Amino acid sequence: MQNNYLVKGFKFSGITAGIKASQKKDMTLIFSEVPAVVAGTFTTGKVVAAPVTVSQKNIRSGLCQAVIVNSGNANACTGKQGLKDAEAMVAETARLLKISKQHVLVSSTGKIGVPLPMAKISRGITLAVEALSENQFQEASEGILTTDLWAKTAGVEGKVGKTSYQIAGFAKGAGMIEPHMKLQRSGGGLHATMLAYIMTYAAIERKTLEKIFENAVNQTFNRISVDGDMSTNDTALILANGVAQNKVIKSGTKEAKAFEKNLITVLDQLARLMVKDGEGATKCVRIEVKGAKNDNEAEKMAYTIANSYLVRTSFFGQDPNWGRIMGAIGRAGTALKAEKVSIFYDKVCVAKNGMSTGDQADAAAKQVMQAPAFTVTVDCRLGKGQCAVYSSDLTLDYVKLNSCYRT
Amino acid sequence: MQNNYLVKGFKFSGITAGIKASQKKDMTLIFSEVPAVVAGTFTTGKVVAAPVTVSQKNIRSGLCQAVIVNSGNANACTGKQGLKDAEAMVAETARLLKISKQHVLVSSTGKIGVPLPMAKISRGITLAVEALSENQFQEASEGILTTDLWAKTAGVEGKVGKTSYQIAGFAKGAGMIEPHMKLQRSGGGLHATMLAYIMTYAAIERKTLEKIFENAVNQTFNRISVDGDMSTNDTALILANGVAQNKVIKSGTKEAKAFEKNLITVLDQLARLMVKDGEGATKCVRIEVKGAKNDNEAEKMAYTIANSYLVRTSFFGQDPNWGRIMGAIGRAGTALKAEKVSIFYDKVCVAKNGMSTGDQADAAAKQVMQAPAFTVTVDCRLGKGQCAVYSSDLTLDYVKLNSCYRT
Repeated sequence: MQNNYLVKGFKFSGITAGIKASQKKDMTLIFSEVPAVVAGTFTTGKVVAAPVTVSQKNIRSGLCQAVIVNSGNANACTGKQGLKDAEAMVAETARLLKISKQHVLVSSTGKIGVPLPMAKISRGITLAVEALSENQFQEASEGILTTDLWAKTAGVEGKVGKTSYQIAGFAKGAGMIEPHMKLQRSGGGLHATMLAYIMTYAAIERKTLEKIFENAVNQTFNRISVDGDMSTNDTALILANGVAQNKVIKSGTKEAKAFEKNLITVLDQLARLMVKDGEGATKCVRIEVKGAKNDNEAEKMAYTIANSYLVRTSFFGQDPNWGRIMGAIGRAGTALKAEKVSIFYDKVCVAKNGMSTGDQADAAAKQVMQAPAFTVTVDCRLGKGQCAVYSSDLTLDYVKLNSCYRT
Repeated sequence: MQNNYLVKGFKFSGITAGIKASQKKDMTLIFSEVPAVVAGTFTTGKVVAAPVTVSQKNIRSGLCQAVIVNSGNANACTGKQGLKDAEAMVAETARLLKISKQHVLVSSTGKIGVPLPMAKISRGITLAVEALSENQFQEASEGILTTDLWAKTAGVEGKVGKTSYQIAGFAKGAGMIEPHMKLQRSGGGLHATMLAYIMTYAAIERKTLEKIFENAVNQTFNRISVDGDMSTNDTALILANGVAQNKVIKSGTKEAKAFEKNLITVLDQLARLMVKDGEGATKCVRIEVKGAKNDNEAEKMAYTIANSYLVRTSFFGQDPNWGRIMGAIGRAGTALKAEKVSIFYDKVCVAKNGMSTGDQADAAAKQVMQAPAFTVTVDCRLGKGQCAVYSSDLTLDYVKLNSCYRT
C-alpha cells in the first residue's frame, strides 16, 4: 500500500511536540501554497471540543490555507481556556506562515478534559512549520494518530480534459467510531467520529465541492461503526487548491461526476481502513440489509446489527449465530416479518423464512467467518429499502484497550 | 439471602429433562391450586418466540393455573413447528394437571433457531408434574437459568387488614438484557429481556393487578440494561391466587398502594440481581441523570450512558473517565449545555461546569469505583427531568462468554 503522496501545491509535516508520553508524533501541519476552497464536516454531538468550534467559525470564510492538528489531547471539556488555546494555535500557525487567521483550521484528538500543554504545542507549531515539505505526506498522516495501530492513507488520480489531478488523504479513527456527518453550507458542521483530511489540486467551485463532499461522506464515513460512540472532535475536511489549473469543475457536469466518483474511492478506502484498525478488531464485516420497507428502515436495522454487543462478539467467536441478528433486527423498531427473513454469511444462507437451513450451512458459514473480512446479508423481503455499513468485531483486546486507556 | 419461599396455594418444581448438555436443571413448573388472576408482559420486539405468541393468546383468559418453562432452547425462529411445540407443551401440562389449556402459560429460553427436543420436553413435563411441591420454590428458580451464575429470588410480606399475604418471585437474565416492557390490557404483551415469575396469595382485582404490575415493571425491570440487546422471549408474569382470602384489593385504595410498594420491592431486588449477575459483570452501576429538560430526555441520556461501550469499559477499568460520559450525553439527541454539566461518582464531583475538577477528585473517584456497586450522577442543570437505570461493566468475561456461547 502506498503511504506517501505528492499533492501539487501542498506541503506537509508530522512532528513530535512531546504531548504524548510515548514521544510518538503528535502534531501535523497541512499547508497549501495558495488559499484552497474548503468543505468540512464536524461532530454533530452536543458536546463539542474547542478546536471544532473554532474551525466551524473559520471555515465560513470558504477558504483554507493551513490545518494544524495535535493528537494526545482533545482540548474538549476545557471551557473558555480551551477556546483561547484553540484560537492561539490558529494565531501562532497563521503568524509563522504569514497567512490570514481566517484561513487556518485546527483539530485536536486524544484525552478529554485536560487543558492543552500550550508551551509544548507552541514549540510544536514552530517545529511543524520548519519541517513543512512536499514529501512529508506520510509523516503528516502519523501525527494525527491516537490508539490507531497504523496510519491510514489513500489516493487516486483523475482528469479534467487533458489536465490530471490527484485526490489524496489521510485519516485516523480507532475508537469512538460511528460518524453520521452532514454538511454545513458555506463551511460548518457535520458529525463524525474521526479525523480525515483530503487534499486535491483540482480546481473546483466551492458549492460543487461542498455538495460532492457531503454525498461522498454520507456514502463512506457515515457508513461505518466501530462502537457506536460519537466523539466530541470529529472532523473531516477537503481542501482543493486548484493548482492543476484545469477548467474549473462545476455542478452537474461529467467532470463533477468523475470527481465525485474519485473522491468516494478515496473516502471508502479510508473508511474501511478505519474499521480494520478499529480498536482490538480482528474482522471487518460488511452488514448489508435489503428488502426493508425503505432505505431509512434498512439503515436502522443495519446499525442495530452493527452496534449489537451480542452480534459483534459472535463475529469475534467466528460463530454464525444468526439468532442474535434476528434479535437485533427485531428490536430496531422497523417493519419486519420474521417468517420472511433470510440471512447469509457471504453466499452461505443460514436462515430462510426466519428458520435455520441446517447444520451443513452452519458449518459452511463458520468457514466464511474465518476470513478477516466477510459480508452478512439480511434480506427482509418486504420492500426495496437497502443499506450497507461496515463494522468490526467486539474483542478481548477492545475491552483491554479501553479499560485502561483514557481517551 | 433467602432462596426458598412458601407461597400459599402454589406448588413448584425444577427438574432436569436433559435439554442442556450440562445436565443442569432445565424445566420449571409453577402450579396454583386454584386459577389465579394473571398479568403479563412480553417482548415487544418484532421477532417473537413461539411460547410468547402462545402465552399472549392464553393470557387473554385473565386466569392462569400453571406456567411451564424450559431453558436450554428458546423455541424462537422455529416457524410453524415451533408454535405446534409450544402448544403441545401447554396441552401436555394441562392434561397431566387436569386443568384448562387456556389457563396454562409457557416460556422458553436458550438457543435460538433450533427445534425443541420434544421427546425430552414431554418426559420433562411428566417429571415436573410429579415433583410439584410447596417447598420446591428454589428448585423452580434454578430450572429457568441459562448463562446465569446463580438463581435470583426475592419476597416480601404484606397485609390487608389483619390478613397477611406474601409476594415472592424468581427471575433469570444475564445477557440480552434491556427490557422496556409495557402492559397489554386483559392479558397480552409487554416487552422485556428476561424471564420473571411473581406469585402472591393476596386476592386482588385483575385490572388493579395489571395496572400495578405495569407501574412496577416500568420502575424496575424496565430500568436495567446489561447490553442493550432485547430478547425474542422476554416474559414477566404475576399470578395472584387469592387464597389469603383477604378483602379483595381494589384500585385507588391504600391496600392497593401498599401492594404496589411491596411488589416494587420484590421486582427491584430481582432487577438488581439481574444486573449483578450480568454476563461477566464485576460492577453494578446506578446511572442517575437529573436536571434534564424532561424525564423523557433524562431517560435517553441515561440509556445512552448505560449502553456505551466506552463508558462500560471504563467501569471495568475503574477509571473515572467522565469525558466518555460527556461524549455519550452529547450524542443522545437531547437538549444539553456542556458548560453546565456536573458529573459525580457517588459523592465525588469529577466535573463541574463541563470541566475537570482536578486530580484529587479523580483519585477519589477511582477509590469509589473499586466498590462492586456505585452511582454515577449526571446533573445537566437545565430542567427537572430525571431518570435512573442500572447497568454493569463491559468485561473480558462478557466477550469470552458471548464469543463462544450460542444463545
